[in-house]
Amino acid sequence: MLDQLTILAPGLLGGSIARGARARNLAGRIVIWARRAETRQALAAQPWCNDAVDTLAEAGRGASLVVIAAPVEAIVSLAVQILPHLAPGTAVTDVGSVKGRIAREGTAALAPRAHFVGAHPMAGSEKTGWENGTANLFERRTCFVTPLTGSDAAAVSRVNEFWRDLGAEVVVVDPDRHDEIVAHISHLPQAVASSLCSFLAGKDPAWRNYAGGGLRDTTRIAASDPQLWRGILEENRDQVRKALREFQAELQAFERALDQGDWADLTARLARGKAYREQLRI
Amino acid sequence: MLDQLTILAPGLLGGSIARGARARNLAGRIVIWARRAETRQALAAQPWCNDAVDTLAEAGRGASLVVIAAPVEAIVSLAVQILPHLAPGTAVTDVGSVKGRIAREGTAALAPRAHFVGAHPMAGSEKTGWENGTANLFERRTCFVTPLTGSDAAAVSRVNEFWRDLGAEVVVVDPDRHDEIVAHISHLPQAVASSLCSFLAGKDPAWRNYAGGGLRDTTRIAASDPQLWRGILEENRDQVRKALREFQAELQAFERALDQGDWADLTARLARGKAYREQLRI
Repeated sequence: MLDQLTILAPGLLGGSIARGARARNLAGRIVIWARRAETRQALAAQPWCNDAVDTLAEAGRGASLVVIAAPVEAIVSLAVQILPHLAPGTAVTDVGSVKGRIAREGTAALAPRAHFVGAHPMAGSEKTGWENGTANLFERRTCFVTPLTGSDAAAVSRVNEFWRDLGAEVVVVDPDRHDEIVAHISHLPQAVASSLCSFLAGKDPAWRNYAGGGLRDTTRIAASDPQLWRGILEENRDQVRKALREFQAELQAFERALDQGDWADLTARLARGKAYREQLRI
Repeated sequence: MLDQLTILAPGLLGGSIARGARARNLAGRIVIWARRAETRQALAAQPWCNDAVDTLAEAGRGASLVVIAAPVEAIVSLAVQILPHLAPGTAVTDVGSVKGRIAREGTAALAPRAHFVGAHPMAGSEKTGWENGTANLFERRTCFVTPLTGSDAAAVSRVNEFWRDLGAEVVVVDPDRHDEIVAHISHLPQAVASSLCSFLAGKDPAWRNYAGGGLRDTTRIAASDPQLWRGILEENRDQVRKALREFQAELQAFERALDQGDWADLTARLARGKAYREQLRI
């Protein structure tokens, strides 16, 4: 058990971490820092929050593990700001959806006093806000942990163990490889779902009333927060562009099969898609 | 109440129509024709099937309304085959996902003896087979009904009323306009979901184990039957090609915003997508 878990800037994921850590008895104390006074007031009233503090000095004091739950563009900056208030050797992790730059800059910024070990749980929702968090959000979900060559072994273990204790299946991977993977299995689907909705928004508004479950499911994640996703896509720009370009080649091949009446090729693409989908974990 | 509802070649939709019609007491008798003997045997044992017959002559005899639940490529042929066995003035409808050619050829083939009025309920599942049908599949779902100028008014009324009685919200629309609409809100999402899965099938197989709920939902319909969809896409080829081409322009614009770092444009596209998604009925 951690003496003190400190969570910075909780949204959906931070709120879920706090609930999960309390439900699973992972920390003696849970201390949360949030920028806005109203948020701190609301957090202080939660049974899974021992203290909602208004300075990073208070947040850092006594922390055994710090989880930075802020959007990708704010993670390194918060790591730098809390550093002076951490005990030597403290492990710091995050939940950012992109890892390459953050892992490198976070590690460099904290070393040698404290240890940054990036993480990215593959869990979420189109909903945002710590109010929507749930204690079991990470159960049986992948959590990537992305240490660098030379990362502090004890800190890596602590971070791995923490995510495993929250119920996640930890996958340790190089941060740049992580960014390539999520560009394909997370950021590309977001770009596709958002583009599908953005495209249909230009059509007859009555059509949306006719849609069946197919369109609803295919576009669920298009309801996600645009600012959050702008940050993720900007951060993972090169990998997402590459995945988008390759995906467009697949779409063009699909269209070509239709154009040319190559029904064998079209059916093969549909069948390959079905086989892939059926091998996804539910 | 119909004296006799006849259903030909039931799959998921036909099985749901029979269950729904029995649950809502819409027909005195429900007669079902299926090609395979094992299917007929299994159907005959269902409480919502009065008679599972092995010829279209038996299926047509006494029918007040015929629903052809076969795949798009078989609909007109079944209509032609059952015609000699229908009482004059019988209404015939279908559940095909494409309507232009089927509405015209079906109407021409049956006139003046019987009346074809095409229909397309926007309900379904990636599952197939009459065994997976449910009585409430059509409840609060759109059902397009696509008469032609000059279609028999009594037959149109009978078909509209039947679908409304099954719980659907009937939308009467020109069959070609129907095909344009579903190319966008149903066939394009299918092409996109299938292509996304077909694309990802070429990547590291381990990646699929890491996927979160976003990819799962976005690709659910990719698990649909490839042969069924090949038939739909072939039948609606021109409209789907047009929608695919326009959608690719949207994806290219998304990629261009990423390329050029035009974050205002990227965020605007994400926000337009979110607004559209939030206006879809759940």
